[in-house]
Amino acid sequence: MHNAIEPIIRRAARLMLDFADPAVYSKGRHADFVTEGDVAVQNFLIEELSKAFPTACFLAEEGEDQQLTDKFTFIIDPIDGTTNYFRRRRCSMISIGVVEGKQPVFGMIYDPYRDEMYYAEPGKGSWCNDDRLHVADMPFEKALIGFGTAPYYEELFDVTGRAFAELLPKVADIRRTGSACMDLCDVAAGRSDGHFEWRLQPWDYCAATLLVEEAGGQCGNILGGAVTYDKGIPHMAASARIFDQLQETLQTIWRESR
Amino acid sequence: MHNAIEPIIRRAARLMLDFADPAVYSKGRHADFVTEGDVAVQNFLIEELSKAFPTACFLAEEGEDQQLTDKFTFIIDPIDGTTNYFRRRRCSMISIGVVEGKQPVFGMIYDPYRDEMYYAEPGKGSWCNDDRLHVADMPFEKALIGFGTAPYYEELFDVTGRAFAELLPKVADIRRTGSACMDLCDVAAGRSDGHFEWRLQPWDYCAATLLVEEAGGQCGNILGGAVTYDKGIPHMAASARIFDQLQETLQTIWRESR
Repeated sequence: MHNAIEPIIRRAARLMLDFADPAVYSKGRHADFVTEGDVAVQNFLIEELSKAFPTACFLAEEGEDQQLTDKFTFIIDPIDGTTNYFRRRRCSMISIGVVEGKQPVFGMIYDPYRDEMYYAEPGKGSWCNDDRLHVADMPFEKALIGFGTAPYYEELFDVTGRAFAELLPKVADIRRTGSACMDLCDVAAGRSDGHFEWRLQPWDYCAATLLVEEAGGQCGNILGGAVTYDKGIPHMAASARIFDQLQETLQTIWRESR
Repeated sequence: MHNAIEPIIRRAARLMLDFADPAVYSKGRHADFVTEGDVAVQNFLIEELSKAFPTACFLAEEGEDQQLTDKFTFIIDPIDGTTNYFRRRRCSMISIGVVEGKQPVFGMIYDPYRDEMYYAEPGKGSWCNDDRLHVADMPFEKALIGFGTAPYYEELFDVTGRAFAELLPKVADIRRTGSACMDLCDVAAGRSDGHFEWRLQPWDYCAATLLVEEAGGQCGNILGGAVTYDKGIPHMAASARIFDQLQETLQTIWRESR
């Protein structure tokens, strides 16, 4: 699987970088954009992956009416960090997750700006290029926490604002890169200690959830239970050391915002 | 000046990257750290700049009891983004500002991870390597705003939390990289539209303020008036298009937090 997917994701990245100034279209909701780069990369990935895996199903960000089944399915984000992409912030990733029986069996994420290929397979660890990844072991009060602002969902602005304000004094500091994939790679690589967003979609977190778990971290639904891949959830990831404390803190913030 | 400073900042960057796992020390306040990398880079810069400019004065992050005078003075941040540096986030810069008569006459900022040299001189524009920089021209409601959390100042957590929560619905989205220098270079390069932090120190913003202004943007004290360089201020920067609106919004948030 690795050997089949890697050249496809690398060619997709060249396509992504070829758009010097991609046309940007609103998807209707607040800050919800798609560019011609996203569409071109997604079309390319689906076409090429279909050739290599003729029976595969697809669930992809720029698609419609998609339902996850038990079949072998690619869950794809052609460009995670679309706003970063068209603002030329050099912080966007291509993410390909593979699920079967609704559980991840492989994940590959490529950072074309740093030429870093992240990948994970159950039981085989998490890797970036040739380096094995491990989550950090910082205590909660020294933790660096990334978060997403769920900018498309205005009903989540209040709880996102509260979460930021209440966490800031409790941890070392907060980061907001604008790419959930990047934030989750950071958790897996020990460059931060946790990440949360009140609504993330499966294409944002599918590959990266496996990456964090295989690096020794934990992922879950903020409000309890395991990560699922059929629809958007309140998603969190953290090192094993702080997962429970971060989850309890976020659950309290959620209850107080209702 | 440019030709004298550039080789020194490049050699300092090699020293910075040579610490694979720098020792970290707390400076006493919340999230206020210094590493052996910061100290080594600062000592190197002061030593080498003193050789090239024997009469120069210095104001630097890891110093004590420093007072700005009208003399030719280097205002130095050896590593802006110290937490990013020791967490290996590849988002930290070396910043050298030069002031005379308490006003900037030159600024140079180096990103050693991307090998990008930013520099500006009054009336000569802002540059990154060989590219001239220009601020963006986005309207406020589509703007991307970076901010700093002023993490060392617990008395500013409340207004920082409010500013995040109140701005999020008004603009496209928010970023928090952990390096004020990087955020200000982003404004100058049009990769974001504004940046603010309720308390920034002159070494954080000296070189970058000139960079933003020479790129066609504006900088100021959030609460009114021009940027000054003798002590920490509530600092903001933005494209000419949104500066006033961002400042009014932040001033309202400040008043409501009192």
